[in-house]
Amino acid sequence: MNKTSCGIILLAAGHGKRMRSSLPKVLHEVGGRPLLFHVLERIQAVAPTAPIAIVLGHQSQKVEAAIRNSNLFSDLKITYIQQPEQRGTGHAAKCVMESSWGKDRLSARQPVLVLPGDQPLLNDELVSQILEPLSRTSALRLLTCELPDPSGYGRVVRRGKKGPVLRIVEERDANLREKAICEVAASIYFFQSSFLSVGLQRLSNKNSQGEYYLTDLIGQAVRAKKPIEVLVWKNHDHLRGVNDSWELAQAQRLLNEQTVKKWAQKGVKFLDPWSTWIDVSVEIGEEVVISQNVVLSGKTEIGRGVKLGPHVVLKNMQVGEGSEVKAGTVAENSTIGSHALVGPYAHLRPDSSVGEGCKIGNFVELKKTHIGDHTSVAHLSYLGDAEVGSHVNIGCGFVTCNYDGRVIEGERKHRTIIEDGVFLGSDCQTVAPVKIGKGAYVASGSTITEDVEADSLAVARARQVNKPGYARKLRS
Amino acid sequence: MNKTSCGIILLAAGHGKRMRSSLPKVLHEVGGRPLLFHVLERIQAVAPTAPIAIVLGHQSQKVEAAIRNSNLFSDLKITYIQQPEQRGTGHAAKCVMESSWGKDRLSARQPVLVLPGDQPLLNDELVSQILEPLSRTSALRLLTCELPDPSGYGRVVRRGKKGPVLRIVEERDANLREKAICEVAASIYFFQSSFLSVGLQRLSNKNSQGEYYLTDLIGQAVRAKKPIEVLVWKNHDHLRGVNDSWELAQAQRLLNEQTVKKWAQKGVKFLDPWSTWIDVSVEIGEEVVISQNVVLSGKTEIGRGVKLGPHVVLKNMQVGEGSEVKAGTVAENSTIGSHALVGPYAHLRPDSSVGEGCKIGNFVELKKTHIGDHTSVAHLSYLGDAEVGSHVNIGCGFVTCNYDGRVIEGERKHRTIIEDGVFLGSDCQTVAPVKIGKGAYVASGSTITEDVEADSLAVARARQVNKPGYARKLRS
Amino acid sequence: MNKTSCGIILLAAGHGKRMRSSLPKVLHEVGGRPLLFHVLERIQAVAPTAPIAIVLGHQSQKVEAAIRNSNLFSDLKITYIQQPEQRGTGHAAKCVMESSWGKDRLSARQPVLVLPGDQPLLNDELVSQILEPLSRTSALRLLTCELPDPSGYGRVVRRGKKGPVLRIVEERDANLREKAICEVAASIYFFQSSFLSVGLQRLSNKNSQGEYYLTDLIGQAVRAKKPIEVLVWKNHDHLRGVNDSWELAQAQRLLNEQTVKKWAQKGVKFLDPWSTWIDVSVEIGEEVVISQNVVLSGKTEIGRGVKLGPHVVLKNMQVGEGSEVKAGTVAENSTIGSHALVGPYAHLRPDSSVGEGCKIGNFVELKKTHIGDHTSVAHLSYLGDAEVGSHVNIGCGFVTCNYDGRVIEGERKHRTIIEDGVFLGSDCQTVAPVKIGKGAYVASGSTITEDVEADSLAVARARQVNKPGYARKLRS
Repeated sequence: MNKTSCGIILLAAGHGKRMRSSLPKVLHEVGGRPLLFHVLERIQAVAPTAPIAIVLGHQSQKVEAAIRNSNLFSDLKITYIQQPEQRGTGHAAKCVMESSWGKDRLSARQPVLVLPGDQPLLNDELVSQILEPLSRTSALRLLTCELPDPSGYGRVVRRGKKGPVLRIVEERDANLREKAICEVAASIYFFQSSFLSVGLQRLSNKNSQGEYYLTDLIGQAVRAKKPIEVLVWKNHDHLRGVNDSWELAQAQRLLNEQTVKKWAQKGVKFLDPWSTWIDVSVEIGEEVVISQNVVLSGKTEIGRGVKLGPHVVLKNMQVGEGSEVKAGTVAENSTIGSHALVGPYAHLRPDSSVGEGCKIGNFVELKKTHIGDHTSVAHLSYLGDAEVGSHVNIGCGFVTCNYDGRVIEGERKHRTIIEDGVFLGSDCQTVAPVKIGKGAYVASGSTITEDVEADSLAVARARQVNKPGYARKLRS
Repeated sequence: MNKTSCGIILLAAGHGKRMRSSLPKVLHEVGGRPLLFHVLERIQAVAPTAPIAIVLGHQSQKVEAAIRNSNLFSDLKITYIQQPEQRGTGHAAKCVMESSWGKDRLSARQPVLVLPGDQPLLNDELVSQILEPLSRTSALRLLTCELPDPSGYGRVVRRGKKGPVLRIVEERDANLREKAICEVAASIYFFQSSFLSVGLQRLSNKNSQGEYYLTDLIGQAVRAKKPIEVLVWKNHDHLRGVNDSWELAQAQRLLNEQTVKKWAQKGVKFLDPWSTWIDVSVEIGEEVVISQNVVLSGKTEIGRGVKLGPHVVLKNMQVGEGSEVKAGTVAENSTIGSHALVGPYAHLRPDSSVGEGCKIGNFVELKKTHIGDHTSVAHLSYLGDAEVGSHVNIGCGFVTCNYDGRVIEGERKHRTIIEDGVFLGSDCQTVAPVKIGKGAYVASGSTITEDVEADSLAVARARQVNKPGYARKLRS
Repeated sequence: MNKTSCGIILLAAGHGKRMRSSLPKVLHEVGGRPLLFHVLERIQAVAPTAPIAIVLGHQSQKVEAAIRNSNLFSDLKITYIQQPEQRGTGHAAKCVMESSWGKDRLSARQPVLVLPGDQPLLNDELVSQILEPLSRTSALRLLTCELPDPSGYGRVVRRGKKGPVLRIVEERDANLREKAICEVAASIYFFQSSFLSVGLQRLSNKNSQGEYYLTDLIGQAVRAKKPIEVLVWKNHDHLRGVNDSWELAQAQRLLNEQTVKKWAQKGVKFLDPWSTWIDVSVEIGEEVVISQNVVLSGKTEIGRGVKLGPHVVLKNMQVGEGSEVKAGTVAENSTIGSHALVGPYAHLRPDSSVGEGCKIGNFVELKKTHIGDHTSVAHLSYLGDAEVGSHVNIGCGFVTCNYDGRVIEGERKHRTIIEDGVFLGSDCQTVAPVKIGKGAYVASGSTITEDVEADSLAVARARQVNKPGYARKLRS
């Protein structure tokens, strides 16, 4: 038997009332991914061919759709099982074991891992160890952990101090001596499928919550004198579950620290790792320097030697090697070429691209705009729906007037074309659709409403008139 | 006897030299409120009808004025007592007990709580427990706490390990064995008024500081063989005092963590609770998402489902439900309607309002400006002293020229009125006072100096002239 | 013998492979200074006249140049010694002791301190204690530290629990009993020079790494029955070394906390000390308030009573007393006078100055621009290469057109002069080189291409034309 010769039941039916959210609990995100995805990724890494049963209940369609649409897990053998009512973890497992998925495990004598979908900090090593082959006589393997403060958790009662497990006692049922026990049960079990299947039939819901508990199977094993294996895990953080927004934030912080530390050890220099937030999907090159309070999310790729200033926020961005993105720049779904300077306080809206060696300066907004190489848009400008060539100089205060309230050829917003080598003075506007030809020159303060041919000079401003002494009059 | 049948002496006379500030210590703020206010709020919650004596000394008028002007405590029975010189806590209590306030407590046989005004992290439970009725024979109840590192604090010396309290020894007077004691005295006491009154008469200031200490009353009780009750408090953080800027910052952090945790448990989703700063006066709705490094202060109200981006700073702001305030937006004393999009990097200055469904985009500044519903001011604009209607489109680079260096009808800044449905092209300016009528259209690049009637088109720009080949000449 | 009668060997030859950086390890910065500089500063404070040998290897020229060019250590007696190959700490010390520097120490019978260049958190007290005179019979003094988790460090094996040191065992060579020892050796030693010199001759590189280790001298001393003195240091943080980016970030955080705490205790009020980053070279006045996420670097000086808003980033800036720098302002190599208001989101680029009582508002960029007193540039403007007088009012959207693509009199960028008392309306541009004379007035929307004389009014805009009903047509 190898590690993948087992079945996996993933519990993802819970509402998560304490989240106080319309989103099902397992879809809340840490590190840019739903809680459930983190668990699935661990399974994918350790047991990629194992049949997986995901138990769904609350908003099951939303959860199933999220998994299917992500395309991350299309190689896994996932079966979705409905748990029509939330009647406890034992009931959830029973729904699975009574399905044809469960019957297949039983007939194949495959052991079954049961684990919750809300523990995003599990790591491969842990999943690998819990899936080690069970001894033939054992009923199950139990995962436990020692906590400095075990209050709130089910205690592991053993014969003597380090003897075999006798039972799990819930906090509310524990006596004083039991409450002093620091070893607690995690919600992860590896069962012989036959033991699991038979045991689930015998579960009772005669308890204060009226629910069926998986933990009761421990008592069954003890009574049947079947050995229980125990995997004691040292780092409790890996076992953290998420039940409310506060716990979500804590899980997010722990996961982020793991991510940042990984990149730091690959040579990324963080000025303050604890204020830097990086999704698990982000890629970062060597010799990158990341300043304080940077947020990198989605499919962001940061090239070698890039410097990110403080308070930069990037989402689904590609930044080419050697570029510098200065303080407070916010950018999304766009690309920045290599050796470019962007910011401070530049704003790149989706579907924009900035070429190699460009300068995009402060208070500049780009939207659906493509900029060639070595072009400068250094100050206070808005470019929307524009194609800008290479070696263009765009002065301060430039505006593409891409919207005039009308629809032209089916388009609400109109395109502006600025060809290579154009020089646009400051405070110019171009009323789209319009084209400024190669090498043309537009005088400062001009509103351009008609195309400018290559190498032409366009002027659209009034002559200056000076009225001597008139300012004195105005003041009085 | 119920909990409110007692008197409360609040010590607020100290200068707080180590704060190195011109502000009296108890007026330094954490969570948006002076230290002293936090203590008063606890009293208000637990003993709202108790007579309170606040001992003032250093800058007493400033402290008294702060309490009176806040309007938060107008329902409390507060008497202000002057302590003309700073001669120790015993002297401060004596000033009170010798006043008519003190005599009233004495004749009513009301016990008296003495507590300092610089412990902002007290909670209701603690205040409630210290105010539990004293046994008739007890002299006082003492509050103590066990610290892992007790250095710097007065140690509680008991007979045997857990026997009755014998005395409090200050750090400098403690021998080695006493220094090893981890139980320390907090500065909070609940006295029989008769014991307090008589004891204060007997205090001596023959010590290294030349001051009268309240702690000496413990020794008096022991010598008189009067029982001392002890309330041992587990969480030292609740008892933290503030003596310098570093301790102020630590108190601020602990208080903020409490505030953020409270909101997280109500369902607010924080991407980084430890970088989010929320005054105690802020209200937040359900399903709100708050990104990293957000600062919410004053009477800010965040409606249901609002999303706040990273680095947003809001003070005395109302944000309507479903709105999104994007990265780096700074806003103060204004309102944002529901389902609006604001930012990134919008700046709302006081007395502004943004209507439902509006878009206020990047690098836009509003000042004393009211904007109707479904209006867009998407880029790089300044609107000051303006009334803008609904369904208005304001292009990029718009400026209300509200100041011309002159005073018109007594006003230094002049108003701009833009009625419903107006379309303003990009790079327009309106020289106030001016009005753009309903449905009017202003061409891009126009400087509007006169009113525009409803449904009119206004143009104020020069014609474009193209000079073929001229750019080539300029370059050479 | 006084403390300076010793030699100091500073080990700075390592590459620091795990940094994964092209910069030599000791030049990586914390608190705005290279790691090595922090160690040199401690030596400078405690033993300013001691001869220092810095062992260089990897990129030795870069390291030597960094020290020489900094001008911080020109008063120290530094000798640079090459270690041609990296063959261990023992080999490095041998290179020094065989040089004439080493022979001088030997003949002068000066003891020699050996310490690494990558421990930036050493403090004066530690360096002072390790340099206390050695007993004549002792071979060396060893620095050790007790760690809660000693894994990874060389353990200090003693005779009995607190007896004399027998040897240092590296983690990989330690048996189980030795691994349980919590006392570890730091990499700092104070040797009798004769013992060091002879001992280095005897070192062998017959170990798994094929290197010569200084720690082997401990065993030599034991075998020779020469006493070893031990300095046990309590705070492990002071001994932290830096081997990768993660450890660099941790050292940076610890150093920063020290710096911030120092200023807090001097009365600076931090709203969140743990998100505020201050280089060791920064100076801050009394009654300063520093908001969240502020970054102060280089030779920045903050005057008395200044208020810095959230997310402000200042580098090599001087800010005069009583000024307020609002949220998100980014400024570099410039000065702000007293009682000025700057920001939010102002951007001061190098070589700019802002006078007393000025207002520089949101989305304003200054570059090589000097502004007199009581001048206002309140909104959305770019001033580059400009001289602006006092009491000037610059409207919103002003642009200095300082670049026209041509070179005039050898200058690529041209200067703009705006004299005292000028009033510039909104949306004006000045095409440089140009001068606006004292008290002149420029109408909103004007492009100024020619000089304006004092007290003149300049207008350069088109007249407004209203076309009644035309907007209705446009819409249809």
